[in-house]
Amino acid sequence: MGGNTFGNIFRLSTFGESHGVAIGGVIDGCPAGLHIDIDFVLKDMLRRKPGQSQITTWRSEDDSVEFLSGIFDGKSTGAPIGFIIHNKDQRPEDYEKLEKAYRPSHADFVYDQKYGVRDHRGGGRSSARETACRVAAGAIAKLILQKNNIAVSAFVKQIGAHRCEKNFDELDFAKTDTNLVRCPDENVAAKMIAEIEKAAAEGDSLGGIIQCVITNVPAGLGEPVFQKLNAALGHAMLGINAVKGFEIGSGFSGVGLRGSQHNDLFEIIGGKAVTKTNNSGGIQGGISNGMPVFFNVAFKPTASISKSQKTITSTGKETELQISGRHDPCVLPRAVPIVEAMAALVIADHLLMSRCNRL
Amino acid sequence: MGGNTFGNIFRLSTFGESHGVAIGGVIDGCPAGLHIDIDFVLKDMLRRKPGQSQITTWRSEDDSVEFLSGIFDGKSTGAPIGFIIHNKDQRPEDYEKLEKAYRPSHADFVYDQKYGVRDHRGGGRSSARETACRVAAGAIAKLILQKNNIAVSAFVKQIGAHRCEKNFDELDFAKTDTNLVRCPDENVAAKMIAEIEKAAAEGDSLGGIIQCVITNVPAGLGEPVFQKLNAALGHAMLGINAVKGFEIGSGFSGVGLRGSQHNDLFEIIGGKAVTKTNNSGGIQGGISNGMPVFFNVAFKPTASISKSQKTITSTGKETELQISGRHDPCVLPRAVPIVEAMAALVIADHLLMSRCNRL
Amino acid sequence: MGGNTFGNIFRLSTFGESHGVAIGGVIDGCPAGLHIDIDFVLKDMLRRKPGQSQITTWRSEDDSVEFLSGIFDGKSTGAPIGFIIHNKDQRPEDYEKLEKAYRPSHADFVYDQKYGVRDHRGGGRSSARETACRVAAGAIAKLILQKNNIAVSAFVKQIGAHRCEKNFDELDFAKTDTNLVRCPDENVAAKMIAEIEKAAAEGDSLGGIIQCVITNVPAGLGEPVFQKLNAALGHAMLGINAVKGFEIGSGFSGVGLRGSQHNDLFEIIGGKAVTKTNNSGGIQGGISNGMPVFFNVAFKPTASISKSQKTITSTGKETELQISGRHDPCVLPRAVPIVEAMAALVIADHLLMSRCNRL
Amino acid sequence: MGGNTFGNIFRLSTFGESHGVAIGGVIDGCPAGLHIDIDFVLKDMLRRKPGQSQITTWRSEDDSVEFLSGIFDGKSTGAPIGFIIHNKDQRPEDYEKLEKAYRPSHADFVYDQKYGVRDHRGGGRSSARETACRVAAGAIAKLILQKNNIAVSAFVKQIGAHRCEKNFDELDFAKTDTNLVRCPDENVAAKMIAEIEKAAAEGDSLGGIIQCVITNVPAGLGEPVFQKLNAALGHAMLGINAVKGFEIGSGFSGVGLRGSQHNDLFEIIGGKAVTKTNNSGGIQGGISNGMPVFFNVAFKPTASISKSQKTITSTGKETELQISGRHDPCVLPRAVPIVEAMAALVIADHLLMSRCNRL
Repeated sequence: MGGNTFGNIFRLSTFGESHGVAIGGVIDGCPAGLHIDIDFVLKDMLRRKPGQSQITTWRSEDDSVEFLSGIFDGKSTGAPIGFIIHNKDQRPEDYEKLEKAYRPSHADFVYDQKYGVRDHRGGGRSSARETACRVAAGAIAKLILQKNNIAVSAFVKQIGAHRCEKNFDELDFAKTDTNLVRCPDENVAAKMIAEIEKAAAEGDSLGGIIQCVITNVPAGLGEPVFQKLNAALGHAMLGINAVKGFEIGSGFSGVGLRGSQHNDLFEIIGGKAVTKTNNSGGIQGGISNGMPVFFNVAFKPTASISKSQKTITSTGKETELQISGRHDPCVLPRAVPIVEAMAALVIADHLLMSRCNRL
Repeated sequence: MGGNTFGNIFRLSTFGESHGVAIGGVIDGCPAGLHIDIDFVLKDMLRRKPGQSQITTWRSEDDSVEFLSGIFDGKSTGAPIGFIIHNKDQRPEDYEKLEKAYRPSHADFVYDQKYGVRDHRGGGRSSARETACRVAAGAIAKLILQKNNIAVSAFVKQIGAHRCEKNFDELDFAKTDTNLVRCPDENVAAKMIAEIEKAAAEGDSLGGIIQCVITNVPAGLGEPVFQKLNAALGHAMLGINAVKGFEIGSGFSGVGLRGSQHNDLFEIIGGKAVTKTNNSGGIQGGISNGMPVFFNVAFKPTASISKSQKTITSTGKETELQISGRHDPCVLPRAVPIVEAMAALVIADHLLMSRCNRL
Repeated sequence: MGGNTFGNIFRLSTFGESHGVAIGGVIDGCPAGLHIDIDFVLKDMLRRKPGQSQITTWRSEDDSVEFLSGIFDGKSTGAPIGFIIHNKDQRPEDYEKLEKAYRPSHADFVYDQKYGVRDHRGGGRSSARETACRVAAGAIAKLILQKNNIAVSAFVKQIGAHRCEKNFDELDFAKTDTNLVRCPDENVAAKMIAEIEKAAAEGDSLGGIIQCVITNVPAGLGEPVFQKLNAALGHAMLGINAVKGFEIGSGFSGVGLRGSQHNDLFEIIGGKAVTKTNNSGGIQGGISNGMPVFFNVAFKPTASISKSQKTITSTGKETELQISGRHDPCVLPRAVPIVEAMAALVIADHLLMSRCNRL
Repeated sequence: MGGNTFGNIFRLSTFGESHGVAIGGVIDGCPAGLHIDIDFVLKDMLRRKPGQSQITTWRSEDDSVEFLSGIFDGKSTGAPIGFIIHNKDQRPEDYEKLEKAYRPSHADFVYDQKYGVRDHRGGGRSSARETACRVAAGAIAKLILQKNNIAVSAFVKQIGAHRCEKNFDELDFAKTDTNLVRCPDENVAAKMIAEIEKAAAEGDSLGGIIQCVITNVPAGLGEPVFQKLNAALGHAMLGINAVKGFEIGSGFSGVGLRGSQHNDLFEIIGGKAVTKTNNSGGIQGGISNGMPVFFNVAFKPTASISKSQKTITSTGKETELQISGRHDPCVLPRAVPIVEAMAALVIADHLLMSRCNRL
């Protein structure tokens, strides 16, 4: 049923476990004639890669993606684009004790419940290692979007209690990658970094919120009624590890407003229909209206912490567990390109689907 | 691409506009041998029906569903279950002026942008009238869940600023339908009703939050990595009209916690593996863990208000619009069965999918 | 998994049993702005309707289709097109004895095996009555094809041993509907009709071959590798009741040739690349090459015959059965519009899909 | 839309061109707990491999498949099974001249028409090299079938004019692989081999028919109405390179029979419902009835021949082409495992789907 496939026309299927030979994927439905900028892809993958700084995991992953098909003379041919990413640094010994004890708020327990067997090495299929494939495919999707002048920009809006309260149009996205935490508001970024360092020192972890802004989305994307553009975006984001919430436009904060406050009134500016406000987040009735699309994604604090925790074993005995592997005290900085990638996959897919709207 | 189809094995396709001849749907993949309790279906549809009280719209819809196929001797046969719901009370004259002026925060504008043509009568396909089909199909899904002792219970948690702060296990869901606003906490319900009446009197509208709780979900539902159970639920909810946000378990409020506070520690109670807390909302790594699944759905204030609003026409002229049709000042009480229906569709679908987990 | 849904972008879902209240369907993905010529649809449905002549069944079906949605001011709106066809003449008493005895080479036995329950009235879901929905939807697909100057023409090529040996380009398709058996070669048609009357008089039935020719298919339709255009056409045809074989271009007769005889050599005529021969049937490597697409569909003799037959009951007892209902001695004349409809659905779907071939 | 994906629950996605770095695939939906017998997989791949004998191509492909994920401790884990097959012997110089001249009855022309760009090296995506992935995945599907005692046996029934006229139940499938041409009737096999050698000597090629027999298929597989088991099998076979026809049971030869001759009468043998004859080919109403499923697949003569042929270039000039690469004079012996693989994929998929037939 496609648990490992995403999309309708522009489709990504992924495979691979964190500590197997390799992970990889197949992109089907990429239109022919797209210049595949490999450097661009690798650059985005580096943004997701562990070990970028002292606030992310020390695991040495080599995220160099190898494209195996679907590209000829630097361009997509319309054939499926297969790719693999080898797992270089495996250190399975770190995970030996995990075979028996279920890590709290991890997927160990539920995989055993679902499948009866489990690749326990580092989370296996449930590891965030898999998201490297999403970033690779998302970069290809971004190349399609670039041809349509659509830009996808995510950034860390909140870590723990530290929140950037500025509206996205007050921020300079060029600054997102200039600090370790990927928050373009430098003052808030400094506080976030300090907070992460504190949590790391305590063997603990933090959650937060990533905001994503997509500009120049043409009006008309989104398929009523079940494939609304916001539903597709929410689906994409909630499929990212550790995500617990999604809100578009005014989101949860809009529920306290009256309709007369919340409605986005239309007006004509420069001959173009726009809305005075954008509580809709660029999507009305499930279809993009030409205004910027923006949404927030809530990440829980990383489940892997160094602190000792009570848990049970696979044979039902209560035990204590101390996780010794290499883990991020806060996944959000590295999740920024993942959010962007999933958003790009959705928009590219809907952009292609929209070619069939009219006769 | 299935914009009007939902689900993988248990699949619902719907059709119909608010002011056409009829709306309806096809359920494909309902297992054979299910006793179809028509009274149960109709009861759920009555909960969604307009005109139930002074706080919902006065539109007189006759939501009696007619099943056309797939049922024989009272049981599902495995063949697709077709059904229609006739539109009885159409009053198209109310909507005549809408042909020209785009209602703010409605789908009028985007449908024109997407399709170039639009059935302007009462919102056409974008009307919430379509959700009647979801409730009918959701009731069938609930019958499957009942066979597995799974219960889906939604209720209004917040209207405007009035919020029921009790945890769901402190509430008696039998009380949900005993008041007009479908909040099982009677004190809060009274305040919500007063607030709705006030907004209605002012020609304005309100939003809020619906919480949905699903008990007895077996461990093992959810398809990694892109069809996580939480992603499927979020997708379903964000496809409901007026929904702007979705959060599962701790959701947005969990982002401020440390991992050591947020992790759900396993323990054995009565020989069964459970978690001490349930910040995960019953889903870990995208797969149900046997704990109650619960989530919140944020609804924006109804876009249709009686107050005069500035807007533009389809020919790009600025104008003023006063919507005179029959509209809910607050959709949440009637949205409770819709949330339940979509949740039931997801769980029934994943329950069937899980039959293929193991050899 | 979509057993009752056909297509990728232009999608048809059908429902309904032969002796239930109604049959019907939903077309999702019809582009907006298509003028829906209802008369054209009804005309095609009349071609499939029983009781057209003494050589088809006497059952009085009223095949007037009622469109319920997706059409406004005579044009498709992009919303799903729902439709129903009421079952008027049900005569369930004819089928009472069938409840117990399995009709040979019918679906009675296998439905019981698959589902454990069965709507035994006239074949239920397995009845060819369902194909009326395909013809209705196929007519809409034909309207899309007409906009692209693509014509789909099927005709009866063989009944029993009587075969029209002429190449399709020697035939005048305008003559197909001028005789009862829908063979444009009048001499062969006369023999076919005599043969059918003879079989009918003996309480027996006949099979045969329908050929379908699709002209002006643009080069480039078909999705490698699993959704080749020939595979999609074969899939469509083999889903029609009583079909036992499909061959495209040279088909089974081509297996005796050498490659040097069979290869279609390219040449330039009038500035256009064409092939000297068309053994490929207009499709090479699964993709249309601009030449006429043509294929043969083999229909077994109708399983319903008046002659007494040995069989078994649902409780495993051997018995004798004489089927007394109204049945075609030969389904092929009425199957001509069904073959055309399924072909039109495939080509329209692939025509839309091909919009995403290139950047 | 899944042009490179096959199946519903047990799904195969493939990628790769004949002369790229590697080909490969992803199997999603393989139930957990299946012992993956790698030797069995490799054995089937060797049957497809070029260079097995003097009657197949001399190209030296190394078909050793590398499994990258989804298998742990020798068993499937429920996670997607990714695999790659490296392309070792590429010799691109053979194909240089093909860049310009379209090979007759190949996919060169249509790929250019469809995509505007083309990987011309050896046919690129349209090469039969891709079928190695199908055989690898089909072998996994066969392992599932073995657990259900279902056997899939294909053999060469006809080459050119030499046809094995014996019914499959008169043949010993253990003999299929004992001769070069994979026809279990040794006398006919000898004539076939001589015919192939003759054609090869003349620089020409041959077509033929492969028959496939599937025993122990349980009654109840197949999804009405569009996903009939015969339609799914036909779809699978017509997606194999060079296939021009498919017939099940009596197929095209059944069209000359009367219903009273063709109907398969039920009887009880050993307490089990069987049919006296099997013109249905084990499928009635699109659903398996427990009798052996068998069908024929027609292959055109190989398009690649050494003889000089007239053709055109990509710039529209008429030219003469002599193909110098390494090509099979007859693909059928090597296509036997491909037919089996596709059949196994279909049956395994439907076997899993059938788990949801009943409550």
